[in-house]
Amino acid sequence: MQRWKVKIAYDGTEFSGWQVQPEKRTVQREINSALGRIHQGQQVNVTASGRTDAGVHAKGQIIHFDSPLQIPADRWSKALGAHLPDDIQIIESVPVPAGFHARFDAVAKEYRYFVRCGQERDVFSRHYAHHVYKQLDERAMQSALDHLVGTFDFSSFCASNTNVVDKVRTLFEARVERISDDQVVFVFRGNGFLYNMVRIITGTALAVGTGERDTGEMVTIRDARDRRFAGKTAPGHGLYLWDVYYKDV
Amino acid sequence: MQRWKVKIAYDGTEFSGWQVQPEKRTVQREINSALGRIHQGQQVNVTASGRTDAGVHAKGQIIHFDSPLQIPADRWSKALGAHLPDDIQIIESVPVPAGFHARFDAVAKEYRYFVRCGQERDVFSRHYAHHVYKQLDERAMQSALDHLVGTFDFSSFCASNTNVVDKVRTLFEARVERISDDQVVFVFRGNGFLYNMVRIITGTALAVGTGERDTGEMVTIRDARDRRFAGKTAPGHGLYLWDVYYKDV
Repeated sequence: MQRWKVKIAYDGTEFSGWQVQPEKRTVQREINSALGRIHQGQQVNVTASGRTDAGVHAKGQIIHFDSPLQIPADRWSKALGAHLPDDIQIIESVPVPAGFHARFDAVAKEYRYFVRCGQERDVFSRHYAHHVYKQLDERAMQSALDHLVGTFDFSSFCASNTNVVDKVRTLFEARVERISDDQVVFVFRGNGFLYNMVRIITGTALAVGTGERDTGEMVTIRDARDRRFAGKTAPGHGLYLWDVYYKDV
Repeated sequence: MQRWKVKIAYDGTEFSGWQVQPEKRTVQREINSALGRIHQGQQVNVTASGRTDAGVHAKGQIIHFDSPLQIPADRWSKALGAHLPDDIQIIESVPVPAGFHARFDAVAKEYRYFVRCGQERDVFSRHYAHHVYKQLDERAMQSALDHLVGTFDFSSFCASNTNVVDKVRTLFEARVERISDDQVVFVFRGNGFLYNMVRIITGTALAVGTGERDTGEMVTIRDARDRRFAGKTAPGHGLYLWDVYYKDV
């Protein structure tokens, strides 16, 4: 039995997120089904670094699974890819020790959130970036985000319907960059993320960027530890799970 | 009655091209249907600068139609947009003289063709760029394309199932540019294009770019005036109708 660590990308547009749900097209279901075919119908369970919601994309999701098959590392990606739909892509397959765990061994994750702004929508990015009709002040947004770098109780930026008790997380990086006149990208890197955390932080930062809220309010919102203080949850289709970091492998 | 010249963009992925066909989702059908709703069910015919095939995109398709409605220019785009699906976008609406014709008055058109190259496919561009697994020599491709700038009989670059008799066209520009390590774009501007002309020229240029064919062969192919001499027709999803030029309006 060999454990495999596999990096995948997917276009979340036509998926009801990562996790298997009855009668829904999900990424996990497609991968389970591909692994089943490769293993002649034998079920192989796959574990991801974490779930992604409907419409959310991945550039570097990490999964693991165990296989009795003697397939060389450089051929696993092609073998899997051959059984996957064209909105899932295998980027790399690496053999790892049996103790490796895609979720529990992750030491950091990076998410990116893409936003287009201005009067004109762009038909080609409708599934790949959130559109805001106003211009965005990225300096104001960056000042607001600076208040979130460090270790805090992020309860204000967590969807209220969650079971997680400990809401303390560390953000190593919270950055916004202008890509072009009508595009910005948010980059978040941290040791863990609460449910909807990136989307709520982004929604709040966008309210600062359009001038609806002041930069300094970010501190009040953060310290309130109450979801009702923060802004809207930005939509899923602007969000990308960009990378997952591990200690050794 | 006012004639309107309207610039539209569309993501061709989920359309069976421009032209109305029974039981197919086409761009023309969606626009007819939107105009019908705005005009309380009265049919309004729409004419485009030309057809686009299934999967082909438009950044600047031009259409015209006549309307008895007194809607100001700055509100036509919103009025139409409100009745259109989100893969069609109205960019600009301009009132024009009744004699204006989107197809017959076009003096030039620009098409662009996007190609990604290299070992790694990109899941996010699968509908928006053609993927070639080899590296591309853009200098060789440019030298080949240089032989096509001017006025020629382009029969070699025209799909054989066409009724057009006169296959002489003028290309003002035939250019390839590297966008990044794994992306190139072809730009074609001419006074008219034969059926599949851009896709056949691109397919032939790509054969030069990968080294399968020599630069100089482009002259032989051009002068043969025979479709069988040229390369493959590149797939539709890399192609964009980029702009249409008119004399005055």
